[in-house]
Amino acid sequence: MQKDIDAEMERKDIQGLIVLGDTTFANPDLTYVVGRNLARGGIYFKRAHCKPLLLTSLLDIENAREGTVKNVHTFTDYGFEKLLLEYGQAEAYLRLIHVVLAQLGVTGKVIIGGRNDLAWGTHLIDRLRTLGVNISGESPPTILEVARATKGADELDEIREVGSKTSKVVSKVLHKLRSAKSKRGHLLLEGEVATVGNVKRFISAQLAIEGLTAPEGTIFATGSSSADPHNSGIPSAEIKEHKLIVFDIFPQSESGYWFDLTRTFVIGSADKRARALFDAVHDAQESALATLRNGLPSQLAMSEACDVIEKYGFRTVRDIYDGRTKKISTGFIHSLGHGVGLTIGERPYLSLQNPDPLRTGNVVTVEPGVYLPKFGGVRIEDTVRITTDGFENLSNTRKEFELS
Amino acid sequence: MQKDIDAEMERKDIQGLIVLGDTTFANPDLTYVVGRNLARGGIYFKRAHCKPLLLTSLLDIENAREGTVKNVHTFTDYGFEKLLLEYGQAEAYLRLIHVVLAQLGVTGKVIIGGRNDLAWGTHLIDRLRTLGVNISGESPPTILEVARATKGADELDEIREVGSKTSKVVSKVLHKLRSAKSKRGHLLLEGEVATVGNVKRFISAQLAIEGLTAPEGTIFATGSSSADPHNSGIPSAEIKEHKLIVFDIFPQSESGYWFDLTRTFVIGSADKRARALFDAVHDAQESALATLRNGLPSQLAMSEACDVIEKYGFRTVRDIYDGRTKKISTGFIHSLGHGVGLTIGERPYLSLQNPDPLRTGNVVTVEPGVYLPKFGGVRIEDTVRITTDGFENLSNTRKEFELS
Repeated sequence: MQKDIDAEMERKDIQGLIVLGDTTFANPDLTYVVGRNLARGGIYFKRAHCKPLLLTSLLDIENAREGTVKNVHTFTDYGFEKLLLEYGQAEAYLRLIHVVLAQLGVTGKVIIGGRNDLAWGTHLIDRLRTLGVNISGESPPTILEVARATKGADELDEIREVGSKTSKVVSKVLHKLRSAKSKRGHLLLEGEVATVGNVKRFISAQLAIEGLTAPEGTIFATGSSSADPHNSGIPSAEIKEHKLIVFDIFPQSESGYWFDLTRTFVIGSADKRARALFDAVHDAQESALATLRNGLPSQLAMSEACDVIEKYGFRTVRDIYDGRTKKISTGFIHSLGHGVGLTIGERPYLSLQNPDPLRTGNVVTVEPGVYLPKFGGVRIEDTVRITTDGFENLSNTRKEFELS
Repeated sequence: MQKDIDAEMERKDIQGLIVLGDTTFANPDLTYVVGRNLARGGIYFKRAHCKPLLLTSLLDIENAREGTVKNVHTFTDYGFEKLLLEYGQAEAYLRLIHVVLAQLGVTGKVIIGGRNDLAWGTHLIDRLRTLGVNISGESPPTILEVARATKGADELDEIREVGSKTSKVVSKVLHKLRSAKSKRGHLLLEGEVATVGNVKRFISAQLAIEGLTAPEGTIFATGSSSADPHNSGIPSAEIKEHKLIVFDIFPQSESGYWFDLTRTFVIGSADKRARALFDAVHDAQESALATLRNGLPSQLAMSEACDVIEKYGFRTVRDIYDGRTKKISTGFIHSLGHGVGLTIGERPYLSLQNPDPLRTGNVVTVEPGVYLPKFGGVRIEDTVRITTDGFENLSNTRKEFELS
């Protein structure tokens, strides 16, 4: 949460935190500290234990003032145009940072964050160091990664809203698929042969109606392509009865917050093999969810899922970590989950390598999967919030396996 | 173009270029050099005058091989898991870079690019320098900014396609607005009072049908809000007859390429003042477009637009650069345009400060605007390609002012 920033700065002995970028778009740390979308970005300055200062362009200032930083000024207020005349565009920007740090009286260690081009960032840091600024880097987790890993009340509201809209879209898609008519070996949707492409267009339109976008796409993988967890589905592929369909949707709202939800199903009846995959994954998810609570070492949730899946006779990535094999392509071949917030993949990670305890306010996916190459895969995923003694499921979509 | 990379490396005396990131999403330099969307990103290495090498995760490798880099390997192929055991997650990544640079025989200057968190980037660069890697920063323009500023044939195909889809969406929106019925002082669309929110939902759905997204939103600003070029429109605002509407749409396709198009119009008839704004802007755009050609100093296109707008009696930002005023909030208050490609704002910039000549293959917006606070604004924008002796308009949408 935002209030962790000061504690983390103190722990790392950092006197100044700067977050910058020419847009808040795809710049989650900057979005986080300003609490707002700024088309032209800005520069956020925080001296430890003091209220932050935000500089933006004149065009963004009204908007910026509606965010979380109360002290907002324009670049012009700090003499940017004068620096521009004296030093030129590239140098003026870093001279401005230098001027503001001096005014804030920051002489100790400074961290500069925000998603930016590293080639330019290297230049910026080298120049500021030459001017005497004491810049440190951060080995992960950064101060802002730690803060962002537990969600505040406003953030939870945003994520809940994306979640509820996402569930609505998924329900509409399942409802549409249920209406498919079987005719001479084909599935028809409104008289046309059902293809992945058609369904994806329907999904996109439904997302748009809810005011969501899917900047990283949507997975709708059918039949054997569902055996590859990163196959997003072949648009021309015909949707067939009785075949596994992995539908993994991860939209983002205008506020910047994401949600992640996966359902696997067949249209009509499933064969035994598909049913066995579903049962294993469903059981693994329920068992893993039941372990969640504040303080649980993240890796234990993953181990629990592995235990269940192995009990059903499938392999898991544990074979790699136990040194039994170098790679596996069948069974449970990925991690159990990851944090969700202003990105679709962040801390905490529910993986075998992560001993860090879960904390109240973490929002994570729980998404075991089992994949059989050339046959298909099953993955079931909810996004949940960690609570003191358990979890709250932010997804609200039934786990139906056979649609009819 | 891609082939400029070697020339730029030589000019800057750079022996090694690295572009990295944990996703190609919103990482245009990485998308550019790999020619593909990679969910988990990768590390691109190029030794000057040699073919590049790309490392990705096992999950992305098939996809990566369909991109532009022919020599693709997994992290595992370069011993990543061994480094992981020896050094832990954070250090293993940079040790991997160190190993690959040594194998490529790179001992000269190295640039590391790609959009990444600077706090982590600072750590990465400091550690690699400690290991003996000779890392340089880049003052803009970076090697990749220069390369990306002129578009290759494949890129132009992508941009043309986004452009044609964007034009289709705009035509559908204008068609819908034309069908609005006037009733007791309200405009009705399909029986409901027309609001910005309703129209925006329609726009989003049309974008979805075309397979486009608008990650940075869409501007549909009506009446006096159109006087603020950064007001994206108030969802609850009712759309009224005879009032200025600025419709600025900037979608992105799955390939990562953007397009930018603005039309300003009124529903029904316009009053004299609105018509005067339109005439000035329309004339300014035509005149600015007529100046475009390979070799033209970018600022001259902007001056031409200022000349015309001033002739119509409106102020322009030239007043600031001439020192006549410190800021202006009325008239032509922004720059004429910017490059479009894997980002919605890149080189070249058509601004008064930019003397750099336009080059064949640049793709730029030409978007003069005139704004009268409390009244409204007009902006007309096309995305065009610079050619040897002129330009090619990639937008294909009429500039109608009065919809009826």
